[in-house]
Amino acid sequence: MMMEGKGMPCVEVCFSPKLFPFITTKEPFVVVLTDILRATTSIVTAFANGVERIIPVHDAEDARKFKEQGFLVATEQDGKKLDFADFGNSAFSFTRERVEGRTLVYCTTNGTRALAVIGEGRPVVFGAFINFTALKEWLVKRDTNVVILCSGWKNKFCIEDSLYAGALAESLLQSGHFTTNCDSVHAASDLWSLAKGDIPRYLEKASHTHRLNRLGLDDVIPYSFNFDITRVIPIFHEGKIEVEKN
Amino acid sequence: MMMEGKGMPCVEVCFSPKLFPFITTKEPFVVVLTDILRATTSIVTAFANGVERIIPVHDAEDARKFKEQGFLVATEQDGKKLDFADFGNSAFSFTRERVEGRTLVYCTTNGTRALAVIGEGRPVVFGAFINFTALKEWLVKRDTNVVILCSGWKNKFCIEDSLYAGALAESLLQSGHFTTNCDSVHAASDLWSLAKGDIPRYLEKASHTHRLNRLGLDDVIPYSFNFDITRVIPIFHEGKIEVEKN
Repeated sequence: MMMEGKGMPCVEVCFSPKLFPFITTKEPFVVVLTDILRATTSIVTAFANGVERIIPVHDAEDARKFKEQGFLVATEQDGKKLDFADFGNSAFSFTRERVEGRTLVYCTTNGTRALAVIGEGRPVVFGAFINFTALKEWLVKRDTNVVILCSGWKNKFCIEDSLYAGALAESLLQSGHFTTNCDSVHAASDLWSLAKGDIPRYLEKASHTHRLNRLGLDDVIPYSFNFDITRVIPIFHEGKIEVEKN
Repeated sequence: MMMEGKGMPCVEVCFSPKLFPFITTKEPFVVVLTDILRATTSIVTAFANGVERIIPVHDAEDARKFKEQGFLVATEQDGKKLDFADFGNSAFSFTRERVEGRTLVYCTTNGTRALAVIGEGRPVVFGAFINFTALKEWLVKRDTNVVILCSGWKNKFCIEDSLYAGALAESLLQSGHFTTNCDSVHAASDLWSLAKGDIPRYLEKASHTHRLNRLGLDDVIPYSFNFDITRVIPIFHEGKIEVEKN
């Protein structure tokens, strides 16, 4: 439940797409979607490297059809690139050489599927540590309610998304422009306060890290927790993700 | 995802009944249901005071029908006792004088509704701080997988249930008889580690506390965080809650 009548916008954290129907934030609000390891970090990276637009799709079959039509396609399942795809979803594969000026079709296990629950008519922006401050400033300027939606892992709570949610929520509250009365905000901020001094050590116990280690992909972890590598803010609108043109 | 092949049972925490379908613990497992403020604390209190059995019902209309048949009925909505009921769900109302030897019909906003998602064929026990050690010992002795299900608040994550889940999970892991690879276990344990030194202060920021304060019911909060007032372990089986007879 949100505090009301304070004249300040509220921030709420939602730990799983399956809990999104139960958020209590009043319209209008912006959704910040996060999937730190990896979809949102990869999407932000692709825009930082000049991708023109990204079309998110919800399953591998759709992605395959786009591939047959000649699109550049990124698709993974359980962290592994599918054979027909040009990319998996490691941020490192979206280099300027490969994506600049292109349209990319993107499907991931958790990240793009979370889009499906948000529904139409609400701005959705993609949040990662690598575009942290730019997004925070954008949200402060926008001056409306914010719901930070964690993609989670197969609809479950996951640590790395929650840490980002906590970091962003804390930063919005500390700006003095937001208020909250959401337990998830408090919990996420507290987890962030425990983790921020030594993130790699904290993540060692997170099960997603174990998964990435098993797949030999742990090289993206330090990168994903870097603050402010770029100022791009990807926005989802009418079926595609683009960056606001200035 | 659980670690396998260690020969030890696993513990998993689930932050909302709506996330229960996505747990990854393998059968067989025991569900520990918790709703610290208040259903499970009240149910454990009622059994400590000699209630014979409790019949949980899922809505106030069912509760009203039982009342018309002469049953003792506890029903609340958003923390307030409904007019036709004998009790709301404050633990303090279930005194020995009023409940000993009786059958009680019980409906609450969050607690009993969580039962509906668990499904048949799994043992469900009711966990609270007030029966903490007895339940921990029972679980260790049982030597099977454990899922700690937080009732939450209207399907949302809530702090007080998460603290209990963290305390119990930590205690099971420290017993040396359980393992985990569940992010929610780590998060809940970390929140518990932050809160346990001064629970009232920690809870001041929890929104459920604000709700109880508004309703003038905050007298149950210190009680609900007392460890080991009783050793009763209420078990749900075939539509009713009873205590194992020795």
